[in-house]
Amino acid sequence: MCSDRIITAGVVVIGNEILSGRTQDANLAYLAKALSALSIRLEQACFIPDQENIIIQTVKIYKATYTYVFTTGGIGPTHDDITSLSIAKLFNVSLLLNDKAVLKLQKHYNSQDLNESRLRMAKIPEGAELIDNPVSAAPGFKIDNVYVLAGVPIIMQAMFENIKHHLVSGDKIFSITLVANLGETSFADRLTSIQKQYPVVEIGSYPFFKRGFFGTSLVLRSTNLSELKKAREEIQEYIISLGGEIKEE
Amino acid sequence: MCSDRIITAGVVVIGNEILSGRTQDANLAYLAKALSALSIRLEQACFIPDQENIIIQTVKIYKATYTYVFTTGGIGPTHDDITSLSIAKLFNVSLLLNDKAVLKLQKHYNSQDLNESRLRMAKIPEGAELIDNPVSAAPGFKIDNVYVLAGVPIIMQAMFENIKHHLVSGDKIFSITLVANLGETSFADRLTSIQKQYPVVEIGSYPFFKRGFFGTSLVLRSTNLSELKKAREEIQEYIISLGGEIKEE
Repeated sequence: MCSDRIITAGVVVIGNEILSGRTQDANLAYLAKALSALSIRLEQACFIPDQENIIIQTVKIYKATYTYVFTTGGIGPTHDDITSLSIAKLFNVSLLLNDKAVLKLQKHYNSQDLNESRLRMAKIPEGAELIDNPVSAAPGFKIDNVYVLAGVPIIMQAMFENIKHHLVSGDKIFSITLVANLGETSFADRLTSIQKQYPVVEIGSYPFFKRGFFGTSLVLRSTNLSELKKAREEIQEYIISLGGEIKEE
Repeated sequence: MCSDRIITAGVVVIGNEILSGRTQDANLAYLAKALSALSIRLEQACFIPDQENIIIQTVKIYKATYTYVFTTGGIGPTHDDITSLSIAKLFNVSLLLNDKAVLKLQKHYNSQDLNESRLRMAKIPEGAELIDNPVSAAPGFKIDNVYVLAGVPIIMQAMFENIKHHLVSGDKIFSITLVANLGETSFADRLTSIQKQYPVVEIGSYPFFKRGFFGTSLVLRSTNLSELKKAREEIQEYIISLGGEIKEE
């Protein structure tokens, strides 16, 4: 067996916006793509409400399971922003006014405008490292393997840009997407045997339904390019032998 | 205190498609809206991979926590479709060929085409009730408070249409969205006191950043319409007293 360097991640989206059906998610979609580009495997993601016990319980499980955890949301100045306090409690440290964070806010706001609720955004768990926010000053932070980012997509993305060079990438994951014009029931048995033959290739089968017909997207992922290509060929040959069409996307 | 009838839900999206960054979610967005229309509170949602232990562990927690659990994905005929077996294991029942499900598939496919992999889709946990699939026959199922739906959005939606009349709705949740042209730091303190004054109104504050300016969406939700309106007025008055503009969306 080869010794792949596998780096994993979990994403925790905090806030009720998505759950109430009001807004379409933007943060998970962005992080899924950005992590994939770094060959970091996003293994799980969740949307949870602004509730301290749920934040603590979820991040606790994720941090023990994945190389990195990214949270978004809940670090603003309002009553429903409870992420920083929850993370402090999880790590059993104090939530303190952070001098560097105060300086950043002082530079951004006029000193007379630096009211109590703005200063709340400078309260950071003891021992955490700040993550710069070039848009609106109030920083995110990193504690252990947990990165606490803003919820506003443009700020979250800017914060991620600031940290991504510090993340350890996994071995490059090669990926091929094949689209067949057959429903997956036509070739499921053969696909199972191809999956068994190429255990280092992860084969995902995703049916879709378009204009009255079923088709299937087959996503092959592996750090081993030569095995990936062999699996692709076997799948292509089989689909064509069934009279189907298949193309790479 | 009033005795609200509160009905809650959790959604578990099973499969790697979203996590790999390949696809934008459609199922959670649909269910979030559909449940909200039924006044069922979607309290948590997650995206998990096709991994038996994670499926079992997640659905176990959700089913004990929420009135209803909805899963999507992983009930097709391929090697990566392991939802039904995982749910059977969770409930400690057998996964059996279900006569009614076989009949549905026989009607849909020619009998000579009803191969082994298609029959796999008729394997249902013992004691579960089937959920009709008008698109491609292979059914979903309900066991206890867990509804197991397909992953293909058009099928998932058709299944949800079939079950939604059987779901118990909560008391109607009224919702108002106010959009202010001020960043939330301008009014966070006052908002906290309004939230304390109206505990039956859930006030969510969601900053956004558009064309170089911060604004805030304030989402007020409550089963008590008169308290909701009072909270709205207090917020509106305060934003206007700051020289801001606020409008209802």
